[in-house]
Amino acid sequence: MLAHELDTPAVTIDLDIVERNIATTQQYYTERGLRFRPHIKTHKLPILAHRQVAAGAVGIAVQKIGEAEVMAAAGLDDILICYNILGRPKLERLTRLARQAMVSVIADSEMTVDGLAEAAAADGVTIGVQVEMDTGGGRVGVQTPEEAVRLAERIARSRGLRFQGLMTFPTTDRTQQMFEETMQKLEAAGLPAEVRSGGGSGRRFRVHESPAINEHRAGTYIYSDTTMVEAGASTLEECAMKVLVTVVSRPTPERAIVDGGSKTFTNDHPSPKGFGYFPDFPEAVLYAQSEEHGHVNVANCPRKPEVGEKLWVIPRHACGTTNLHDEIVATRQGRVEAIYPILARGKIR
Amino acid sequence: MLAHELDTPAVTIDLDIVERNIATTQQYYTERGLRFRPHIKTHKLPILAHRQVAAGAVGIAVQKIGEAEVMAAAGLDDILICYNILGRPKLERLTRLARQAMVSVIADSEMTVDGLAEAAAADGVTIGVQVEMDTGGGRVGVQTPEEAVRLAERIARSRGLRFQGLMTFPTTDRTQQMFEETMQKLEAAGLPAEVRSGGGSGRRFRVHESPAINEHRAGTYIYSDTTMVEAGASTLEECAMKVLVTVVSRPTPERAIVDGGSKTFTNDHPSPKGFGYFPDFPEAVLYAQSEEHGHVNVANCPRKPEVGEKLWVIPRHACGTTNLHDEIVATRQGRVEAIYPILARGKIR
Repeated sequence: MLAHELDTPAVTIDLDIVERNIATTQQYYTERGLRFRPHIKTHKLPILAHRQVAAGAVGIAVQKIGEAEVMAAAGLDDILICYNILGRPKLERLTRLARQAMVSVIADSEMTVDGLAEAAAADGVTIGVQVEMDTGGGRVGVQTPEEAVRLAERIARSRGLRFQGLMTFPTTDRTQQMFEETMQKLEAAGLPAEVRSGGGSGRRFRVHESPAINEHRAGTYIYSDTTMVEAGASTLEECAMKVLVTVVSRPTPERAIVDGGSKTFTNDHPSPKGFGYFPDFPEAVLYAQSEEHGHVNVANCPRKPEVGEKLWVIPRHACGTTNLHDEIVATRQGRVEAIYPILARGKIR
Repeated sequence: MLAHELDTPAVTIDLDIVERNIATTQQYYTERGLRFRPHIKTHKLPILAHRQVAAGAVGIAVQKIGEAEVMAAAGLDDILICYNILGRPKLERLTRLARQAMVSVIADSEMTVDGLAEAAAADGVTIGVQVEMDTGGGRVGVQTPEEAVRLAERIARSRGLRFQGLMTFPTTDRTQQMFEETMQKLEAAGLPAEVRSGGGSGRRFRVHESPAINEHRAGTYIYSDTTMVEAGASTLEECAMKVLVTVVSRPTPERAIVDGGSKTFTNDHPSPKGFGYFPDFPEAVLYAQSEEHGHVNVANCPRKPEVGEKLWVIPRHACGTTNLHDEIVATRQGRVEAIYPILARGKIR
């Protein structure tokens, strides 16, 4: 079947581009002796996680225990859960998981460390813990090297936990200095940071600029999206995810309505350039979305798409798009090669 | 089990509030002899669709054939699909469905009408068609009464189709005049518009202001959300959907990070008031979301929530939130009463 014959909306990935993205990114790390740990949030597919590891990745990163469970059940065996795990239900799942695969987590508070320690000791497993530092991202993470050292010491003296090192998201211009300062203090405390993990697809080819970092996590690079392109971190040719939609209405000369809206694409990352890019209608702007309708301004298109016409759209946010769908169509050279159930979709816990 | 004991994030609905919302809204229509057709996009649950019909609704509205298939399979038998159905795969599903339930659709173009006509005739079924008019919503719909009449005539002379009337979304201040003018022209053409259907939860108690309208569709009213509250169309007491989250990090005195982000709540309807409302921490603002983290400003909270503490959040957009989740927890008086699989979730086609 030709990809263009799919009923719409259809979320597709071009496997040639996916494989090229995996290869070129991994090559950067392999050549420099750096560790690369792809984040599966973008694809949520065990089959692609396996390909990333086969290409040379040291393991995978996930955000939720539910994602780790899916990946471990599919045979992935080195999994970093980039999240503070709190509360008995999740801690019990975590220690069970630690019997199936090598599982590491992060922590940025004493409460997280103590919960992990208690659960690991009770279940007789050992869990690696990285201290998350906020190096400018403004999300999770300790704010100072001193806090990081205090937390590392707490981890190190907890039975069942092993201090692995430092982690941040995203890598910023401040990461190098904060990591370096923290590493020195950790050395002085007799707790060297074996892993210093940065993150973000935008910096995937700039890790050498921050020599304190010896491991990097990135997710979006495998599919890319227009957010990456707009940030200059990707080219349109690297965009593997494309959604086929149909024009369902042309109510006015300048307006086209397509059959994908926020339930197909998300409203993530709003931009004046719109919620997606139409490779065959570069002047078209997906300026608004309701749940099932994409509102497209076609005023500047030399030829305007007609009702019933199918259009390709490169999404604004690949990871968010993935999470909305139960399956994804893998294509090659314009033909449908496989339909993958998105096994780790919707794992909120 | 107490709702507060659920592992997080947990998406819940309070059945007492749901039932009250169903009853008070239906009462408005029953008292006035108006037809009410709830839109299932908000709950995507056959069990609640059945309760809406049992309360007096004339049937249900859906957006996609996949949603109609789920609802028909669950025994709902009067279904309006508010969408231009195009292309053979969907048309075949539509005519199959028309053998199981009374199914109506909308159309705003000749192409849609002709496709419906051909499919209905080929399969020997009759499908009701309403002409969608754009009465100010700026989405789908013919722009003028003349276009509406031309399309009605085309429907009326198509074997297998039955012209039902007019439909718009949302009802606006212009709807009354446009419907009235179109109804007169339709009468003159010998094609009375039996149904004149408006839409939108915001106007659910204002249908009598537009006497041309004799049927109304609304979805969000059943759960409500902070978008409705901010628009003055709902009270906080009418908000049935609440999401339980846990504070997973308190990196700074003013910042709390919770374990629900855009993958739990969507980034729909951004507002300075944030992506949700914390009933127990009214000063807290969910100012940003990454996929798995909600970024909360707690600077103005007299008492600030601590790491590990569970918080209730009323979402910004109930319908979008529903679509992200595989199941929803039904509570009553703070206890878990049922867990419903969201059977019509993710039906993009």
